[in-house]
Amino acid sequence: MKDLAVVLVSGGIDSCVTAGIANKTYESNGVDHSSNLAFLHINYGQRTEKKELDSFEKIADFYGVKHKLVCDFKWLSKIGGSSLTDLEMDVPVFKKETKLKSFATSQEIPPQNVPEQIVPTTYVPFRNANLLSIGVSWAEVIGAKKIFIGVVNQDAPRYPDTRPEFIQAFNKLLKLGTKPDTHIEVLAPLINMQKYEVVKLGAELNVPFHLTWSCYKNDALACGKCESCKQRHDAFKLAGINDPINYE
Amino acid sequence: MKDLAVVLVSGGIDSCVTAGIANKTYESNGVDHSSNLAFLHINYGQRTEKKELDSFEKIADFYGVKHKLVCDFKWLSKIGGSSLTDLEMDVPVFKKETKLKSFATSQEIPPQNVPEQIVPTTYVPFRNANLLSIGVSWAEVIGAKKIFIGVVNQDAPRYPDTRPEFIQAFNKLLKLGTKPDTHIEVLAPLINMQKYEVVKLGAELNVPFHLTWSCYKNDALACGKCESCKQRHDAFKLAGINDPINYE
Repeated sequence: MKDLAVVLVSGGIDSCVTAGIANKTYESNGVDHSSNLAFLHINYGQRTEKKELDSFEKIADFYGVKHKLVCDFKWLSKIGGSSLTDLEMDVPVFKKETKLKSFATSQEIPPQNVPEQIVPTTYVPFRNANLLSIGVSWAEVIGAKKIFIGVVNQDAPRYPDTRPEFIQAFNKLLKLGTKPDTHIEVLAPLINMQKYEVVKLGAELNVPFHLTWSCYKNDALACGKCESCKQRHDAFKLAGINDPINYE
Repeated sequence: MKDLAVVLVSGGIDSCVTAGIANKTYESNGVDHSSNLAFLHINYGQRTEKKELDSFEKIADFYGVKHKLVCDFKWLSKIGGSSLTDLEMDVPVFKKETKLKSFATSQEIPPQNVPEQIVPTTYVPFRNANLLSIGVSWAEVIGAKKIFIGVVNQDAPRYPDTRPEFIQAFNKLLKLGTKPDTHIEVLAPLINMQKYEVVKLGAELNVPFHLTWSCYKNDALACGKCESCKQRHDAFKLAGINDPINYE
């Protein structure tokens, strides 16, 4: 059976770089490796759903990916509990005093900028378990042996479901919950990287950053003010790389 | 905050008995305990989707449950891989020689009737992880501390995601993947029971068996021939209890 890898592609920079890594693992085969990749995207009723789907399709086209699955998780917005899916909750913006200007190197990250105990309102309850579960269901049917997810541990423990322990526990669960002859592993190649390192790696891999979308609020021009825009902006700045998208 | 429990209610006998158990745990409070229960149902494009949803609604009404969430998992049928969701695959029927006539007591179950290594076509890839993940998302938002699921270990290891080790691993995962102040536990009270014991317990709890649906094939009159109908039939027979639904 063909060596297939499922890649969770949201349309943001992390998943785009992850797709670039997955693509790279097959490049040495020398053959048309695009058919080794299977891209999975979830609409979960988030504010920028259409824009993210558009990015997903364009990134898939960029890599020539034929196996695609787009799923609707409307219930995630129905249950609410997150400012990403509940239009009555405000998306947080970074205040001046928490500007990430001191993110010069990973060693210098001041702990007060990454509050250990406060889970932000942009946390979507148990989202990654839901995304990975559908990834496993699909991988088991198409016979994929790997699932790539672009979680970045810099966000942890603010987002509890981005921690290495979480991925480990998920791998144990999927081994127990699938057929005896199914062998799937979840890989999170960015998990121990800082965001600016992700951008650097993406630039080395020539990933299509111009096709990605990060803004939590807008779907025409990125707002430049929400948490995600700020993180993206700072990551590109620290990496010394030009962000190819436009801002308001 | 109110002591809430999410119950996964498919509409079958196992989840109905599980709802009865969850209901019982609140009965001793003496107050209107129906508001302690939150019923979750998933449509996943299975053949008998409408009939199962109808059973869900009726069982919810029976227990006076106000918190209800119905989610569509259309993608499970889109990816296929199961005879429950893929209309081009046949739902298996029990052959004469594998009739469960020797299921007189749990000790007498002949191993050849429960092939250890063969996962049936009715297995829906990693389904329970998907169902429990949405259960956790909802539980975290509404502040529920328990999630009841009616998996029965008699089916294991034919269905890998019904094993006690799977539930244990899932509990570990949810602890890691939710907010630090979230405390949710998945309970599978039927997991170590035989199906006929489930029926006996249900009868003791006066659960509404007449509202349940088990048939994998039909949604008007139960076929009486598919694996699920056979299991139900044998379970009622062994329990010495009359099955209140009609068959073809």
